[in-house]
Amino acid sequence: MVLSKKNKVGHSNELAALFEPNSVAIIGASANAERIGGRPISYYIKAGFKGKLYPVNPNRDEIQGLKCYPDISAIPGEVDLAVLAIASTAVAAAVTACGEKGVKVIVLFSAGFAEVGEEGNTMQAEVDEIASHYGIRILGPNCLGLYNGDNGNCPTFTSGLEGGFPRAGRVGLITQSGAYGTHLLTMSKTRRLGVTKWISTGNESDVTVAECLEYMIDSDSVDVVGCYMEGVKNPEILIRALKKARAAGKAVTIMKVGVSEVGSEAVQSHTASLTGSDASFQALIDQYGALRAHTTEQMFDILYAASLSPRATGSKLGVLTISGGAGVLMADAAEELGLTLPPMPDTIQAKLIKRNPLSSPRNPVDITANALNDFPLVGENLQAMCDEGGYDLLVAFFTSLIGSPVHGEKLLKVFSEGIKGQGKPFAIIGQAPEEILEKYEAAGIMVFEDPSRAVVALSALAKLNTAFEQANEGEGDFPDIGKISLPTEKITEAEAKALIAKAGIPVPGEEVVGGAEQAVKAANKIGFPVVMKIVSADIPHKSEAGGVALNLANAEAVSRAATLMLKTVKEREPNAKINGLLIAPMIGEGVDLIVGTQNDPVMGPIVMVGLGGIFTEILKDVSVSLAPVSPKRARSMIESLRGVALLQGVRGQEPVDIDAIADAVSRLSLLATQNESDIESIEINPLRAMASGVISLDALILAKEAT
Amino acid sequence: MVLSKKNKVGHSNELAALFEPNSVAIIGASANAERIGGRPISYYIKAGFKGKLYPVNPNRDEIQGLKCYPDISAIPGEVDLAVLAIASTAVAAAVTACGEKGVKVIVLFSAGFAEVGEEGNTMQAEVDEIASHYGIRILGPNCLGLYNGDNGNCPTFTSGLEGGFPRAGRVGLITQSGAYGTHLLTMSKTRRLGVTKWISTGNESDVTVAECLEYMIDSDSVDVVGCYMEGVKNPEILIRALKKARAAGKAVTIMKVGVSEVGSEAVQSHTASLTGSDASFQALIDQYGALRAHTTEQMFDILYAASLSPRATGSKLGVLTISGGAGVLMADAAEELGLTLPPMPDTIQAKLIKRNPLSSPRNPVDITANALNDFPLVGENLQAMCDEGGYDLLVAFFTSLIGSPVHGEKLLKVFSEGIKGQGKPFAIIGQAPEEILEKYEAAGIMVFEDPSRAVVALSALAKLNTAFEQANEGEGDFPDIGKISLPTEKITEAEAKALIAKAGIPVPGEEVVGGAEQAVKAANKIGFPVVMKIVSADIPHKSEAGGVALNLANAEAVSRAATLMLKTVKEREPNAKINGLLIAPMIGEGVDLIVGTQNDPVMGPIVMVGLGGIFTEILKDVSVSLAPVSPKRARSMIESLRGVALLQGVRGQEPVDIDAIADAVSRLSLLATQNESDIESIEINPLRAMASGVISLDALILAKEAT
Repeated sequence: MVLSKKNKVGHSNELAALFEPNSVAIIGASANAERIGGRPISYYIKAGFKGKLYPVNPNRDEIQGLKCYPDISAIPGEVDLAVLAIASTAVAAAVTACGEKGVKVIVLFSAGFAEVGEEGNTMQAEVDEIASHYGIRILGPNCLGLYNGDNGNCPTFTSGLEGGFPRAGRVGLITQSGAYGTHLLTMSKTRRLGVTKWISTGNESDVTVAECLEYMIDSDSVDVVGCYMEGVKNPEILIRALKKARAAGKAVTIMKVGVSEVGSEAVQSHTASLTGSDASFQALIDQYGALRAHTTEQMFDILYAASLSPRATGSKLGVLTISGGAGVLMADAAEELGLTLPPMPDTIQAKLIKRNPLSSPRNPVDITANALNDFPLVGENLQAMCDEGGYDLLVAFFTSLIGSPVHGEKLLKVFSEGIKGQGKPFAIIGQAPEEILEKYEAAGIMVFEDPSRAVVALSALAKLNTAFEQANEGEGDFPDIGKISLPTEKITEAEAKALIAKAGIPVPGEEVVGGAEQAVKAANKIGFPVVMKIVSADIPHKSEAGGVALNLANAEAVSRAATLMLKTVKEREPNAKINGLLIAPMIGEGVDLIVGTQNDPVMGPIVMVGLGGIFTEILKDVSVSLAPVSPKRARSMIESLRGVALLQGVRGQEPVDIDAIADAVSRLSLLATQNESDIESIEINPLRAMASGVISLDALILAKEAT
Repeated sequence: MVLSKKNKVGHSNELAALFEPNSVAIIGASANAERIGGRPISYYIKAGFKGKLYPVNPNRDEIQGLKCYPDISAIPGEVDLAVLAIASTAVAAAVTACGEKGVKVIVLFSAGFAEVGEEGNTMQAEVDEIASHYGIRILGPNCLGLYNGDNGNCPTFTSGLEGGFPRAGRVGLITQSGAYGTHLLTMSKTRRLGVTKWISTGNESDVTVAECLEYMIDSDSVDVVGCYMEGVKNPEILIRALKKARAAGKAVTIMKVGVSEVGSEAVQSHTASLTGSDASFQALIDQYGALRAHTTEQMFDILYAASLSPRATGSKLGVLTISGGAGVLMADAAEELGLTLPPMPDTIQAKLIKRNPLSSPRNPVDITANALNDFPLVGENLQAMCDEGGYDLLVAFFTSLIGSPVHGEKLLKVFSEGIKGQGKPFAIIGQAPEEILEKYEAAGIMVFEDPSRAVVALSALAKLNTAFEQANEGEGDFPDIGKISLPTEKITEAEAKALIAKAGIPVPGEEVVGGAEQAVKAANKIGFPVVMKIVSADIPHKSEAGGVALNLANAEAVSRAATLMLKTVKEREPNAKINGLLIAPMIGEGVDLIVGTQNDPVMGPIVMVGLGGIFTEILKDVSVSLAPVSPKRARSMIESLRGVALLQGVRGQEPVDIDAIADAVSRLSLLATQNESDIESIEINPLRAMASGVISLDALILAKEAT
């Protein structure tokens, strides 16, 4: 992937001509419907495209039944979109011709550009410049184009449309890779997914996955989007699109592969090696409520579930089953994925057992194979679960019975009627011929053959609901940490500590003050608890003179101690010259953490927190977020650590001050964000967390190198 | 599940009458092919069963075209197998009648026995007693029967045979759950799996999953077995079956669900809470080379791969692809699963790039979509990978092209010919109509739509190979630790330490000896390094008198120190009475571990090792095996810990003595095994591992309660 900073940050309206052109020219048109220049024409015709279609080929008068033009300038009307199915060396001239014609957007199939090295890179830059001169947007090069089912727009040569178009539906698919995009398009047909828009972005010299996502989220005909990407070019657009999706309750699932983009950068700090861009990417999509799919099948299962089901209302799962084993299997899987399985109310259980003594209607509600002898049991138990169970999601194991000639139709009726108007996601585990599956899906019921996959899909719906709910929660106002000025030389530990102290993160410091009022001020700055010591060259044994006070926990204690100390010392050592009181932090026992920020080249500042020592070094147990984070969000980062129990007090240890850690993480993230142009990374290692408060025992700041 | 200790430990030959009867009676036969008593008859007829089939029903003369008998005694010839499709209350009488007739095995469909509580339990015990009296084996009750494709034996009413029988093949399926078994049987048809035997064991009052597994492993017509189980009844048979499978190179994949059987037992020691029966079960199947499937789909993918592919020779994976993205996706997934992706040799890469400049033939070997313009590239690159890559497994991403009317047939030819005679597992990622998929499968090539699932299946083949190789590695001879005699009272720490010391595990101990020779003996027993101190009531300041030697690392040092010490002390304190030399262990800095054993009620003694403190308490980072384990196996248990780096020396620490830990784990496992009838659990916590040697700082032994 080419990381180009010059990509236009276009608004999705700019992509209207790409998805909804009124007129399309195919440059390099072919009469052979199998060839690159012939396929799009054949697809346009099959899809019943309503706009104008102009084949361009100097050697023919007619192509696939359409009048053919010798060049684009010969086309009588306007051309919104031009497809370039020509050799890479001919592209520059063709783009110029398109520019002169007033074309708005080009779909550039041709390969041999940036993906093949230096020479191709130069050629791609040349093409970009021409396009930019004329204000033309480019999809590609080295892309397979797109398909829009809404209007039959098919500027693509993907073989994924060979066997026919996907069924109508409200799913959008976006993919960088052409070959993989074809695979996804074909899969959408074998998996009965209704795909209305599909696009492959290729080299992304201009139009990116993020822009396409924003376009689809803005589109009225798309509810659910799946993205396959190898790198993120426009994180700001991606974030905007994800925010819009979350606000609109549209599900986005993303599959991202590939090695870390920062991997090649010199790893200058510990934090950098612990974050890396995949962690930053994960942080981004977590933050904005998209779902990460780890396999292609998982992406399709999530798309299937999200496109068929109503929005989940929570994560309480009710399991109806005719097999005890299958019930346990799903219960185990569900709990592992964070769903809960509350039992049915006792009184209802008693009623159901009375009706069906062999049943075990707790949750899973196991009605046993008895259901086949006493069919109304199925509906009655489902009804009880809907009315009395308080479940947010439902799953029912009925295996091949749903496809059985004897029971199939009856079950379909019971389930469709049972779930009607409930507004709950409902998955059946079963096997049936395609036409029966379609009837279930028409009733808004998912059907899975594998129980574990069903549970994964249901848990994805629950996660989406949480994300949608978070759309309404603001992060709150962030305090202004302000610009700091960095030393021009390498930043010393002391300087680093002074800088993070300015951000309000406690560092060990000591201050000499005159009296109680100043002592309190100093202690407030240093952070409680503090130590107080008398300052005097004339008193060698301070303790005996009443000149030491340890563990002063708050302002009142400091004030009281200061007054008392000055009085006592004066009484006991009347001849000593007193220079003041030293206020220093009391660094107690505690747990050490590591907190850091790193300027990710793509995502900008990210912040991470982990437990120190083996936890970060051996177990890589860290939590990463895009910066800045609120103290609330920092707290949930900390709570997501595997070793969090260590902070909550295990083995008789006192718990440490998680709020103070969260505050430090939040402040550090603000420092990094508000000084993004100057600071490359910050690392506090260790940050000692104590029963009350935290303190930075060491700190390192790397300045951004001048560019 | 009922845990009955009285199950017969039958040899698999005893199941011959169950799988291969010559004559079958259906008690409770029905003319209606939809009813429980009608289905088996209809299936027997459809399957073309060659043996004799006798419907039994007092109300009919003929059923489904067969002569019907009023009762079993009226049947003229012998009856090997009787199916009981009658109410539970009629079962006892029917079993008696079967006994009088000389029936060898009964398939007992009826429900209402142990699975419904006390009353059913009593009835089941009664039936068992009658069967036992007559020497009849029973499958069930509450089971769905079985299917044997070899001879058309169908004593089952599963709806999984409704749509037809599974295709011919060499896969066996064993399932406890009837409903889930039906699901699996149906899935085997949708997934094109050749299943020759299927059995559902139900309540397992007699015949268990483990016995059926042994029968299938012994069978010439089965190569690959999938088991679905909820609990293990006969671990000794399961182990025997798994050993046979491993020795015969037959793949076994097991899906086990359900809550821990020891969960309800009082958790008496730390070890018990860290192991639990799922961990013991995992330890069992790891030890004997079966594969654990975590989802149903994974089980089918493994069965599909193992039944189609030759045995893998190692874990080096070669990836051929037309999509860079798909290549990276598979490479990432493969490495995560322990496969390696060595690059093609440089010279071959250079040759391939010369031939196809757009390609990137490292590994993944990305030949790009260019392959479609220059078709021979596919075969050439595959050939190079087979001949020069040294790969053990191959996967190729060709998406819908394998089903394309244009390229499909050509690709099939290239792949079949390319892989012929290579003896390598080969998976294609692609989409094609069923008839093309079948052609690939006939050529021994797997086809997956999802790349991640393909990689999981390939990694399973590599794991199986490792397991098969281990079949030839003995565990070596275990030393005889010998019976120990436990105190009758609660065992004290000192007593526990003395007992583990007898097993050869170092405990802090001290011994008073007379001279150099005895000192060396004592030091050998205690373990090096040791401390030596002069014993004398007359010498208050031992160091000054030359009476202390620290850190004696070996016998020579001890011997030398003893001689020197006695000499020096005598010189410096000529009047002191010397009582001897105290030899004590030198307990140095090190890493603390926890090592324990636990008598699992099903599996017998198991042994576990983990790092101490947070690693076990918070991270549950422990490794569990069936006991006993050899030091070699103990070492690999230790190496599988997530925190193993801590033992290998991180952060400037010296590595600790892993061999000594392994030795202690092995010895403890022997102590537990050889005293299984007396010891419930042992725990050494902590076991301090040092640069050289280990020492048990605390030990706890719980005796088995008298029963």
